[in-house]
Amino acid sequence: MKKQTKGLVIINTGQGKGKTTAGLGLLLRAWGQGLRPCVIQFVKAGTGRWGEVKAAEKLGVEWHKLGDGFTWKSKDSGEGIAKALHGWEIAKEKIASGEYDLIVLDEFTYTMHFEWLNTSEVIDWLKANKPSELHLVITGRYAPEALIDYADLVTEMTNIKHPFDKGIKGQRGIEF
Amino acid sequence: MKKQTKGLVIINTGQGKGKTTAGLGLLLRAWGQGLRPCVIQFVKAGTGRWGEVKAAEKLGVEWHKLGDGFTWKSKDSGEGIAKALHGWEIAKEKIASGEYDLIVLDEFTYTMHFEWLNTSEVIDWLKANKPSELHLVITGRYAPEALIDYADLVTEMTNIKHPFDKGIKGQRGIEF
Repeated sequence: MKKQTKGLVIINTGQGKGKTTAGLGLLLRAWGQGLRPCVIQFVKAGTGRWGEVKAAEKLGVEWHKLGDGFTWKSKDSGEGIAKALHGWEIAKEKIASGEYDLIVLDEFTYTMHFEWLNTSEVIDWLKANKPSELHLVITGRYAPEALIDYADLVTEMTNIKHPFDKGIKGQRGIEF
Repeated sequence: MKKQTKGLVIINTGQGKGKTTAGLGLLLRAWGQGLRPCVIQFVKAGTGRWGEVKAAEKLGVEWHKLGDGFTWKSKDSGEGIAKALHGWEIAKEKIASGEYDLIVLDEFTYTMHFEWLNTSEVIDWLKANKPSELHLVITGRYAPEALIDYADLVTEMTNIKHPFDKGIKGQRGIEF
């Protein structure tokens, strides 16, 4: 008997740490199980210094950074916005392809929070096009209420204590 | 000029998901940066079915499961407790060795919450023996207040929505 898989829509939100890293942990777990993961990163700059990007390369995990393959098309919106919209085009293609078991849309919430994308349109598109077995992980602060309603698993990360409060700077292998 | 590193004590606690996976994400990030990570798992059973254990094997990351190398020594405590105490002995050896840049003590909080270990003694030992550059990640519910006081970065994971509420079962690559 084939085991039934229900692709979950997972959101990691809140002001605290651990939203992206928990997504990376799911990626590692899925990769360890022989599943096919993919990451689309919406906000962080693609300098290549990030530990997770280097790791993904070594693991052979497909990873799309903000602005990858981007060509300027719009005169009406800022470059950052246009890149994020381009990221959503890539995401839609990857989601609809059926070639992945788990896709992480890192920091995707901001595109809706800042209204670069219309939340209802995103949800309607996902309802119509996300393969039922695909797990989708969305990270970032300010997850819209409608997206939370649509999701299966939503976790809020809250800072109880943060080293930046003590003047300790971001460090290689921890913050990036 | 050598870049100053301050080894952080990081706690992921709370009732929500993402505590262990955020630790795994830090492990992946650190591994990607060429740092030397190690995991000691205190509670989950070592069946070998876990995606993260399979992944760690493939990455060449040292991973100690509960009960690894355990030999029965105590008649006074249950086997589970004795295994956890044995895990702490392994953890102390790895922490003090100076051979790692990041060590994850997964689900370690329970050993203190259930008073198998004395929280003050654990903290005193860490203060005296943890190399200053070593990052230590501790996960699990019910992190003791004294441990939170000692830590540099503490995040609480809270469930906003959970698929088990809807009767969806744990799935390969997501829950394990």
